[in-house]
Amino acid sequence: MSRFWSPFVKNLVPYVPGEQPKVANLVKLNTNENPYGPSPKAIEAMRAELCDALRLYPDPNSDLLKQAVADYYGVQTNQVFLGNGSDEVLAHIFHGLFQHDQPLLFPDISYSFYPVYCGLYGIAFEAVPLDEQFQIRPQDYARPNAGIIFPNPNAPTGCLLPLEAVEQIVQASPDSVVVVDEAYVDFGGETAITLVDRYPNLLVTQTVSKSRSLAGLRVGLAVGHPDLIEALERIKNSFNSYPIDRVAVAGAAAAFADKAYFEDTCAKVIASREKLVQGLNEHGFEVLPSAANFIFARHPDQDAAAIAARLREKGVIVRHFKQERIAQFLRISIGTPEQNQALLDAL
Amino acid sequence: MSRFWSPFVKNLVPYVPGEQPKVANLVKLNTNENPYGPSPKAIEAMRAELCDALRLYPDPNSDLLKQAVADYYGVQTNQVFLGNGSDEVLAHIFHGLFQHDQPLLFPDISYSFYPVYCGLYGIAFEAVPLDEQFQIRPQDYARPNAGIIFPNPNAPTGCLLPLEAVEQIVQASPDSVVVVDEAYVDFGGETAITLVDRYPNLLVTQTVSKSRSLAGLRVGLAVGHPDLIEALERIKNSFNSYPIDRVAVAGAAAAFADKAYFEDTCAKVIASREKLVQGLNEHGFEVLPSAANFIFARHPDQDAAAIAARLREKGVIVRHFKQERIAQFLRISIGTPEQNQALLDAL
Repeated sequence: MSRFWSPFVKNLVPYVPGEQPKVANLVKLNTNENPYGPSPKAIEAMRAELCDALRLYPDPNSDLLKQAVADYYGVQTNQVFLGNGSDEVLAHIFHGLFQHDQPLLFPDISYSFYPVYCGLYGIAFEAVPLDEQFQIRPQDYARPNAGIIFPNPNAPTGCLLPLEAVEQIVQASPDSVVVVDEAYVDFGGETAITLVDRYPNLLVTQTVSKSRSLAGLRVGLAVGHPDLIEALERIKNSFNSYPIDRVAVAGAAAAFADKAYFEDTCAKVIASREKLVQGLNEHGFEVLPSAANFIFARHPDQDAAAIAARLREKGVIVRHFKQERIAQFLRISIGTPEQNQALLDAL
Repeated sequence: MSRFWSPFVKNLVPYVPGEQPKVANLVKLNTNENPYGPSPKAIEAMRAELCDALRLYPDPNSDLLKQAVADYYGVQTNQVFLGNGSDEVLAHIFHGLFQHDQPLLFPDISYSFYPVYCGLYGIAFEAVPLDEQFQIRPQDYARPNAGIIFPNPNAPTGCLLPLEAVEQIVQASPDSVVVVDEAYVDFGGETAITLVDRYPNLLVTQTVSKSRSLAGLRVGLAVGHPDLIEALERIKNSFNSYPIDRVAVAGAAAAFADKAYFEDTCAKVIASREKLVQGLNEHGFEVLPSAANFIFARHPDQDAAAIAARLREKGVIVRHFKQERIAQFLRISIGTPEQNQALLDAL
């Protein structure tokens, strides 16, 4: 603590991202990256940006990318907000839409960045317990709130809430914003973007870091009513005029346009997941039903932290959270068939 | 205004960046971009990043780039903070270091994003008038304050404050943070980074958008005491774990390493500036002394807004600010010799 700090900084508890190891040859199944590279068309589009024009600022509105997203989802560009990764999009959402008198609601087991944003912006929250099967119960959110946010599929559980249940939550809180954080939706979920025209309080966030294999590029997005988007644009334009660089705009737009590559790689990940679940079951693991590019698994007899440490020694990294209720689970990203086999062999 | 917005959003007055026109063939002298492209070594380094590894998150700490900056300035990596453009770095500085009881101080004529950040984070400020020659008077800042920030060279005037005067300001306010915003320092100024080891309250910001020709990439930095950097890291890690993408880290690091290209292009811009000033003088303009890659000029008989409009019709864009005291000035970025001649011809 320094006397120069703004007082709130002292109490910040920052988010801890999964390890990005600097040694090679590890089977890296800890941060839910896609095992397949980005679309060759995205690479090509980015290569075209590596020229003298990099001396110029990017388009502050990233119109090319907004249009690509709008085309993909059949919405208008004024329903689309873009940010430097979905983490930045979420930060602006917490700041611009969740500062109200009631507490914000999110599941007790979900993306661990949510309480961090609350600390950053001084937002009171209540963590709503998942049920005994680690599922979101829509009726638990039908009470006064400053907003609701949950990942769907949820992280780190991988469990999917059906679209009807999402709609039930949105309908029950017409006076506050409900954010569905769909970072993993393309691996087996159904997007709630189809509902945004009917619910002015619904906002859906997504990312190109998972299903579009561009975690290294930092692009995230939100889709919702133009009034919600306007709040985010006001904050963005009071924070950083040009959050997305020229290379990222081109790469992400090309990735949205290449539907065939996207569908093919998503299908491969889903097939690998089903095979990995089977393999883990054969090793005695219990695996929660997953609609994501990771699974959440526990062994009845073996300590999760000990398994993670043992795997790490054998060159396989998975993620373990020291958190109540889930301390005996491991979160394992879906790799290529070879990587998944390496995991099973190491077990 | 929507009932869903956090209340403060209603009163935000966002920053308005210079126009990024979507038509080609304009002589674009309005946003202080470098007329020369980035270092070929930076382009090469970025090209190497366009591969399957983009599926992976970047290093959250951007250590490669921190080291390149530390090497360049002869400081330690824990004295370096990095962000997605210096606008993001400034935003975190306002949030993390300027929220105190006294008002923040900055010049009445300076970077117009400063009051916007104050609106975003609820920071009271006082705009300290420049003197009649549009210069910063150090003694005006020797009074109670929550912090001090000024660009050096100042923008949009281009005027440089000598390093002794900067030091005088830093010494006079030992209990608050003094930020020297050196976006343009490489075109004729002397960096205050040489003073950071002696003053724990001094923080210096820079960008790769100007002298390193990478505005399209979005990388900014701050150098100062590790305690100040820690406040910024806490905020960054509570906002967005991975603000700088893989391509940007590689490109910016290579640009810092290529000192010869940097020095050559800076020298060319400086030489062009001197020639442009001469040409404008011959057209009857008064030009403030500039140490930046732009000049600030007024004509005794012609209205600035009218000149800008006329230039625009002839395909030359310069920047005009509708602001008290400077409404009769034009801010003109230094182009290539050909672009500068096109401007003079259009006048």
